[in-house]
Amino acid sequence: MQSFPKVLECISDLSKDQIEKLIHSANRLKSGYVPVGSRNLGRKFTPIVATSFLENSTRTKHSFAIAIKKLGAMYIDFNADTSSLKKGENLEETLLTLHYQGVDLCIIRTSVSGELNQFKKDPPIAIINGGDGINEHPTQALLDLFTMFEEGIDINGKTMAIIGDCKHSRVGHSLTSLIPMFGGKIIFCGPKECLPEDIPANCEATTNVDEAILKSDVLYTLRIQKERHSQKAAYYDNYEEEFGVNLKRLQRLDKKIPVFHPGPVNIGVELDYETIKSDLYLGYKQVTNSVFMRMAILKAMLIDA
Amino acid sequence: MQSFPKVLECISDLSKDQIEKLIHSANRLKSGYVPVGSRNLGRKFTPIVATSFLENSTRTKHSFAIAIKKLGAMYIDFNADTSSLKKGENLEETLLTLHYQGVDLCIIRTSVSGELNQFKKDPPIAIINGGDGINEHPTQALLDLFTMFEEGIDINGKTMAIIGDCKHSRVGHSLTSLIPMFGGKIIFCGPKECLPEDIPANCEATTNVDEAILKSDVLYTLRIQKERHSQKAAYYDNYEEEFGVNLKRLQRLDKKIPVFHPGPVNIGVELDYETIKSDLYLGYKQVTNSVFMRMAILKAMLIDA
Amino acid sequence: MQSFPKVLECISDLSKDQIEKLIHSANRLKSGYVPVGSRNLGRKFTPIVATSFLENSTRTKHSFAIAIKKLGAMYIDFNADTSSLKKGENLEETLLTLHYQGVDLCIIRTSVSGELNQFKKDPPIAIINGGDGINEHPTQALLDLFTMFEEGIDINGKTMAIIGDCKHSRVGHSLTSLIPMFGGKIIFCGPKECLPEDIPANCEATTNVDEAILKSDVLYTLRIQKERHSQKAAYYDNYEEEFGVNLKRLQRLDKKIPVFHPGPVNIGVELDYETIKSDLYLGYKQVTNSVFMRMAILKAMLIDA
Repeated sequence: MQSFPKVLECISDLSKDQIEKLIHSANRLKSGYVPVGSRNLGRKFTPIVATSFLENSTRTKHSFAIAIKKLGAMYIDFNADTSSLKKGENLEETLLTLHYQGVDLCIIRTSVSGELNQFKKDPPIAIINGGDGINEHPTQALLDLFTMFEEGIDINGKTMAIIGDCKHSRVGHSLTSLIPMFGGKIIFCGPKECLPEDIPANCEATTNVDEAILKSDVLYTLRIQKERHSQKAAYYDNYEEEFGVNLKRLQRLDKKIPVFHPGPVNIGVELDYETIKSDLYLGYKQVTNSVFMRMAILKAMLIDA
Repeated sequence: MQSFPKVLECISDLSKDQIEKLIHSANRLKSGYVPVGSRNLGRKFTPIVATSFLENSTRTKHSFAIAIKKLGAMYIDFNADTSSLKKGENLEETLLTLHYQGVDLCIIRTSVSGELNQFKKDPPIAIINGGDGINEHPTQALLDLFTMFEEGIDINGKTMAIIGDCKHSRVGHSLTSLIPMFGGKIIFCGPKECLPEDIPANCEATTNVDEAILKSDVLYTLRIQKERHSQKAAYYDNYEEEFGVNLKRLQRLDKKIPVFHPGPVNIGVELDYETIKSDLYLGYKQVTNSVFMRMAILKAMLIDA
Repeated sequence: MQSFPKVLECISDLSKDQIEKLIHSANRLKSGYVPVGSRNLGRKFTPIVATSFLENSTRTKHSFAIAIKKLGAMYIDFNADTSSLKKGENLEETLLTLHYQGVDLCIIRTSVSGELNQFKKDPPIAIINGGDGINEHPTQALLDLFTMFEEGIDINGKTMAIIGDCKHSRVGHSLTSLIPMFGGKIIFCGPKECLPEDIPANCEATTNVDEAILKSDVLYTLRIQKERHSQKAAYYDNYEEEFGVNLKRLQRLDKKIPVFHPGPVNIGVELDYETIKSDLYLGYKQVTNSVFMRMAILKAMLIDA
């Protein structure tokens, strides 16, 4: 059996078997099962987990913080704003410092795509990618898959439409790696400049949202990252009209299919208020499952390892 | 029996009976009684409590943090500066996210007066108002009342002078609601532009601080909010001379009465150093009691509910 | 027996006997001994410890945070950026507030040299100096001494070279007090404007780094504080060439002696990459020991006191 990686940077770090085990574990944690390991751990051996988020985020960070505390680990928020990283210390030395201070695992969000790759060979501590630039956000994609399984959606042989800035979305990239691994097909949909340059085998791309919806079994809407653009993107003004998913559009196309969003939603842009309050919307379940999937990942890396 | 409200926005959300129970509970917690509920709660059921303070504050936030931890609940500081609220997420969606992440209660400080009112009908989670604009700050007024009871001050039939910017003080507004409920009378005192427009029945207002002190049994001095004014208020320069409470003034008026202040004091403005070091000053007792009254409120909303 | 001071501002607050006991205690804590006191403390009596860091730092703050949590105390980060100190509250009133909120001890980092001295006479709560301006940083020097003992380096009769801005380094000042107490001699080395004006008896100073290294048994390299100077110091450009410690230099001088650094290292300035990856470098051990020495200090002040 392949051992669990010490650095979880991207979906391809995991085997299909490992991912299935994570889903099983998240499911047991959600139903109230407390891992024996954590119950038996004395104070001396309590694992210490840190977060280091170099970009604004509370949703992901707090979801991890709750998962850490629920597992019974010790939590340290390595606040990047006031950190030694600003004193010019490099990331390797920071991770070594955390290691020598007794930290077992660090969840890192960084604006530099692929920055964590360098640590795969000889990691000072266990690392989870909490989103790196426009590269990947593996724990988000894993919790999305968990939500699908929980909702009885077997993506094998089915099609997911990813709608939005597919080219620059780290969640989109992680899904692009994950969904085909489980037999699913992806239709990328968005403004032309937002479609990936290389379309994976068995996938397709379109600028027509109606077409994407009609061909799909599951919709995954991405957040428009207004704050990432120094200049507002040209497509932004008409985004809702051209790419927004709303109940009217779904009713006109006669499609009653589940709608995902990694949050937070720009209400009235990617999704309208009616959709997020409808039965089709799974965004709130994604939030709940984020805690349990992250507990499962932490457990795999801290306790079972 | 009226059930405890799920949203504590203002004093009028509580009945007199409920407030008396809170005082009794704070008193027991202060004398060392640990609630059975918390001792028996397994990890799985540990309540999760968040703070979200959109304005600078440490006194109130830390007082809540200590209360949360002393009760044995899990504490998450939803740091507003780096939060999704800055990504344009609205407060309703933020509270829903907290709910779905497993958070049971959130203490919110906001600059928008009355912002929490919208959640009273169908609150996603329990909410405590930690100060909303110039509206109310109910937990402060409740801990003040607890301090009065503890000091043997029965406000029934007595008079409290509230001195300062009564018109814009959220603590002042909460006291204006609370003190008459317990049979007390209020004299508002401050510069003309700081007096309330509508004086409640049985209360009065004056710009003469000597008169206010002479007619009162208890003094409640408010903090001058220098930092809230873009322009320095005209009355600020002569504030101490005209409205400042100091030992000399109290001696000249031959009044030995308790002096409250919600803190932090601008020493030499609202109060002089000699007063806060004298036996008359109850500000430090207010600080101590803030932890126990907030424990009592949290216990009522989390455990007894 | 002298009782442990309630304010640890500088090394001279401690007797040699007390320091030896701290080293013994840190050693036991590192080998896994959990203090009986903390195990027996019920929730009611859990000590509350706060940090208040008015300057950027995560290394020291997190080291304390981990030490606090490992001891089983309750941790509150009194975030100075958003604190009442910005509302104009003075430090004495802040410490009184912490005291009345139930906080037992506060670790303070401040930019004002000697600011904590005022509290020695009648401290509102126990205080540990986490670095005050250019005055002292006693816990760093104590963990350095612990690391020496652990490495079998008896400084009695030996010489330590302190290399860098000796004049303005708080760690340097604490070492200057501590090393002679244990029979060691110091050679200060650095650019002329960085040498102390008063050289203690039995110590010397030089601007020649080779000379300092040749005469020493232990090297203590200081961090160049680029960020403290509004203008870049004139010596900075040639620092590595003139004062940097690197493997080549040590080999040329045929000196195999231990190298300390309080971190974070400006790699390629005070030390080269080869040195910090060599067996001579003790910086990572200093990091590990920082947690255990700080646990020992906290234990002495909180539990044994």
